[in-house]
Amino acid sequence: MSTVTVDLNADLGEGFGVWTLGDDDAMLEVVTSANVACGFHAGDPAGLLRVCRAAARRGVRIGAQVAYRDLAGFGRRYVDVTAEDLTADVIYQIGALQALATAAGSSVSYVKPHGALYNTIVGDEGQAVAVAAAVHAVDPGLPVLGLTGSAFFAAADALGLRTVSEAFADRAYQPDGTLVSRREPGAVLTDADAIAARVSSMVGLGTVEAVDGSTVAIAAESVCVHGDSPGAVRSATAVRDRLGADGVTLRAFTR
Amino acid sequence: MSTVTVDLNADLGEGFGVWTLGDDDAMLEVVTSANVACGFHAGDPAGLLRVCRAAARRGVRIGAQVAYRDLAGFGRRYVDVTAEDLTADVIYQIGALQALATAAGSSVSYVKPHGALYNTIVGDEGQAVAVAAAVHAVDPGLPVLGLTGSAFFAAADALGLRTVSEAFADRAYQPDGTLVSRREPGAVLTDADAIAARVSSMVGLGTVEAVDGSTVAIAAESVCVHGDSPGAVRSATAVRDRLGADGVTLRAFTR
Amino acid sequence: MSTVTVDLNADLGEGFGVWTLGDDDAMLEVVTSANVACGFHAGDPAGLLRVCRAAARRGVRIGAQVAYRDLAGFGRRYVDVTAEDLTADVIYQIGALQALATAAGSSVSYVKPHGALYNTIVGDEGQAVAVAAAVHAVDPGLPVLGLTGSAFFAAADALGLRTVSEAFADRAYQPDGTLVSRREPGAVLTDADAIAARVSSMVGLGTVEAVDGSTVAIAAESVCVHGDSPGAVRSATAVRDRLGADGVTLRAFTR
Amino acid sequence: MSTVTVDLNADLGEGFGVWTLGDDDAMLEVVTSANVACGFHAGDPAGLLRVCRAAARRGVRIGAQVAYRDLAGFGRRYVDVTAEDLTADVIYQIGALQALATAAGSSVSYVKPHGALYNTIVGDEGQAVAVAAAVHAVDPGLPVLGLTGSAFFAAADALGLRTVSEAFADRAYQPDGTLVSRREPGAVLTDADAIAARVSSMVGLGTVEAVDGSTVAIAAESVCVHGDSPGAVRSATAVRDRLGADGVTLRAFTR
Repeated sequence: MSTVTVDLNADLGEGFGVWTLGDDDAMLEVVTSANVACGFHAGDPAGLLRVCRAAARRGVRIGAQVAYRDLAGFGRRYVDVTAEDLTADVIYQIGALQALATAAGSSVSYVKPHGALYNTIVGDEGQAVAVAAAVHAVDPGLPVLGLTGSAFFAAADALGLRTVSEAFADRAYQPDGTLVSRREPGAVLTDADAIAARVSSMVGLGTVEAVDGSTVAIAAESVCVHGDSPGAVRSATAVRDRLGADGVTLRAFTR
Repeated sequence: MSTVTVDLNADLGEGFGVWTLGDDDAMLEVVTSANVACGFHAGDPAGLLRVCRAAARRGVRIGAQVAYRDLAGFGRRYVDVTAEDLTADVIYQIGALQALATAAGSSVSYVKPHGALYNTIVGDEGQAVAVAAAVHAVDPGLPVLGLTGSAFFAAADALGLRTVSEAFADRAYQPDGTLVSRREPGAVLTDADAIAARVSSMVGLGTVEAVDGSTVAIAAESVCVHGDSPGAVRSATAVRDRLGADGVTLRAFTR
Repeated sequence: MSTVTVDLNADLGEGFGVWTLGDDDAMLEVVTSANVACGFHAGDPAGLLRVCRAAARRGVRIGAQVAYRDLAGFGRRYVDVTAEDLTADVIYQIGALQALATAAGSSVSYVKPHGALYNTIVGDEGQAVAVAAAVHAVDPGLPVLGLTGSAFFAAADALGLRTVSEAFADRAYQPDGTLVSRREPGAVLTDADAIAARVSSMVGLGTVEAVDGSTVAIAAESVCVHGDSPGAVRSATAVRDRLGADGVTLRAFTR
Repeated sequence: MSTVTVDLNADLGEGFGVWTLGDDDAMLEVVTSANVACGFHAGDPAGLLRVCRAAARRGVRIGAQVAYRDLAGFGRRYVDVTAEDLTADVIYQIGALQALATAAGSSVSYVKPHGALYNTIVGDEGQAVAVAAAVHAVDPGLPVLGLTGSAFFAAADALGLRTVSEAFADRAYQPDGTLVSRREPGAVLTDADAIAARVSSMVGLGTVEAVDGSTVAIAAESVCVHGDSPGAVRSATAVRDRLGADGVTLRAFTR
C-alpha cells in the first residue's frame, strides 16, 4: 500500500531585534520545513539562531528564505537590483543562515525566495537566473522551493538544481493556476476549516477550486501555510489535522 | 638550512556600494592573507564577492574580518552588545563570507576581529568569549588572528582554537608590548622605509623599538599592513621588498 | 485655590515597518506628551507620521525621542560615538520628526533621549554636552526631558535650555534618588495599583518609597509611563485615574 | 541692458561615514546651488552638517536631495514603494536636512529628487504625486528642481509648488528633449570643453545639439553639473568660466 506524503512549510524567524512576528514555536509544532529569514527583510542573527535551534530540536528542516535588502519594506517591495548584486546578496544570505544553522546543530536544506523577490522571479528572467546562480554557487545540491512554470524554475532546471513545487494553503487561485493578486478581494482565505479542506483537495486529489468555480490541477510537493497572520497557527493546525485524518503523512520533501 | 617565513595580512573589501576604500587589487599583489570585511562595518555582497574572486585568483588566503554592526561608524565605535547577540552576529558574518568565498572557488581560512571589536576583546572577557564561541560554533578548525596575551586568545585557547599572533607594521609600541593609542601623537607610522625596517626587525630579530627607545620582544606569525591609508600600497610594498632582501619567505600561516 | 498639574509622557511610534510595539492609540488616550521615536532606534517615517497625526488629533504634545543609531539593538546598547557625530545624529533626528509633525499639523515641543543614550548622559559629560548642543542648534527654545542632577541637565542649563525633570512611574528608586538598574530584581514594577499609588505619592507629596523602605524626595514636572510592556495601557490608565481622583490635572508642561 | 543669469547645481554630501565621494569643497567654489544628500542614498549626519556649513560659508544655496531608502544601491535602483511610504520618507529626509542646515546657519531652499527616484517620477504619476505632496506638506513655498514636462512637475503644479526646470551639462539629449539612457554609449559626455560649449549654447541660445545632430530647445533655469565623476571639478570649472566669458551671471534661481 502506498502512502501519500506532503511537506508543510511556513515563514519563520521574521522578527527583528525587539520586534516579534508570529508565533514561531507554535508553528514549529505543525510544519515540517521552516523558511527562516536571513536578515535582509527580517531576522537579527540572535533571533535567527534561536529559531534555528528550535527547529533543530524538533527535527524541522531549515530553509533559507532569501529576500531583497529591504528591512523597512519587509522585502515586499520590488527592487530593480542588478543580476550581479542580486546573486551576491543571495549568496550572502544563504551563507549567513548556513553558519547559524550549523551552530544550531542543523543545516540549510533548501532555499525559498521571499515576498517581492518570490513574485518577481515568477516572470523576470534576469532576476530568476541571478537567484538560481546564487544557489548553485553555494551548493548545487540545494533544492529550491517555488512555482511550477516560473522563470525561476526554468533557471534552476538549466543549472540542474532540484525544484520543489509548492501550493498555497490560504490563497485563491486563477483558473490558469496562478495566484489571485493580494490586491484583489478574496485573494487570501482566513477560514481555518475552508483552508484545511482546500489543502486536503490539493494533496488528495491534485486539484483545487479556482475563483470562478472551475477546477485547477495542482501538483505540490510542499504546501505553504502562512505564519504571520493572526489566525496562522489555528489554520496551520487545521491543515495538519485534516491531512492526518486523510491518512496523509507530513514529511519534509526529499532532496 | 632553515628558512624564516612570515604571513602578511591586510584589511580588504572595505568599500560599500558605490564607495571604495583603498586599492584592493594592489594590496592583493603584496599580502598573503586578506582580512575581508563581512558587511557589518563595510562590504556589500557584490563587492565582497569581487575581492574574494581576486584573492582566489592570486592564491591569497581569505579571512573573515568580523565587526560590530556599525556601518556609519565603520566598526570603530565600541558597542555594548550582549554576548548572545555578539556571538550570533559573528556567526552570521563568518557564514556570509564563507558562502561568498565558496562561490569564488576559495574558502574562509581564519577569523580576525575588526576595529573597536578587536580592541575591546583584548581586555573584555565577556565579548572575547562571545567571539571565540562564535568561531568555534561555525568551525572549531578555524584559526583566529589577534594579540598574544589578550582575553580573546585566552578564550580561544580555552575552546581549543588555533591562535595566530600578529604584529602591526605601522603602529608604535609601548615598552610593555601593547600599542600606543591612536589618540596619541606618533601612534601611526607613515614612512615606508621606517615601517619596512621595523618589520625586518620584528621578523628577523623578534624585537621592535618602543616609543621610549627600549627594545620590545615581538613574536608574530603574521604582520598586519594597513590597506586604507594613502601610502598603504607603498608601505606594504616596501615591507615585502625588505623582507625579500632579508631572505624571509612570505607565506600564509599554517592552519 | 491652587491646582496641582502634572504631565504624563510615554514612548510611542516604536514600531518599524511591519513590526509594531505597544498600543499607541490607547496610550494617546492617557498621556499628555508623546515621546515619538525618530527612526534611529525605531520608527519608519510612515509609521511616525501616523502617530504624529494621531497625537495631533488628540491634542497630545509631540517630543522627539532621540537615540543612538541602533535599530538592531533598539537603542538600548551604549555606543561610543564621538561628540561630533552624536550632535549631528541628534540634529538629524529632531529635524526629521519636526517635518513629520509639521505635516501632521503639529510640531516638536521637546526632546527626550532614549534608552542607552538617556542613561549614558546622566553621567557622561561629553555625550551630554553633544546632545544639549544639538537641541540648542536646532531651536534654543526646545525644552529637554531628563533627570535632575544629570550631566545632561547641567549641559542644558549651561546653554540656557529649559529642563523638565521627570520621574518614572514603574521603576524602583535607590535611597539617593537614582533608579535601580534594570539588571536588579524588582527594578521594574508591574502591578498597576502599586504604580498608581506611587505616582500619587510622587505628585501629591513629592516623595516616593525607595527600595530600602526609606523616603526619597522626587520633584517631577512629568511622569513617564512605559508604553511597550504588556500591561502598559492598564498601568497608565490606573495612573491617570488615580491622579484624577486626587484632584490632579493632567496637562503638558509649559515651555 | 538685460543680464542673462543661470543657476549651477551639483550633488554634494554623498559620502557616508569613512567613505567619501567627489570633492565637495572644490565644487562649492563653482556652483550656486548644492543638492545635499539626506541620508537615504548617502550622507551621514556629521558629514551632511559639514557640507551644510561649507555651503553656508560660501553663500551657496542648499537643496534637499531626497532619495529611495537604499544606501547599498546609492538610490540608483527603482523601489516599488507605496505612495504613503514615499511621502513620509521624503518628509523625513527634508526635515532632517532642514535641521542640519539650520544648525549651519542656513536653510533648505529647494528639493531635488535623486537617482532612480528622479527618473521614476518623470513618468510615474503615483510616486510623482507622493513626492510633491511631501514637499507641500513640509513647506508649500519650497521650489522643486526637475524636468519640464515630467509627471513630477505636473503634480507640483497641481499643488502650487514653484518648479525650476533644469538641464544636464554632461548628458546627451534625444531629439525630443529627453535624456539618452546611461546604458547607451555616448550618454555621458566627459570632455570639459565640449561640456562647457553645450552649456553655453543651452543658456545663451536655449538649444542644444541632440545625438542625431538635430537642434533641441532647452529652457533651463538651472544647469546640473555632476560632482562625483573623476573630471567633475574640471568640467564644472570649465562651464563656469565659459559662462563668465559669455557674460552670463551665475546666480541661484529665485524662489
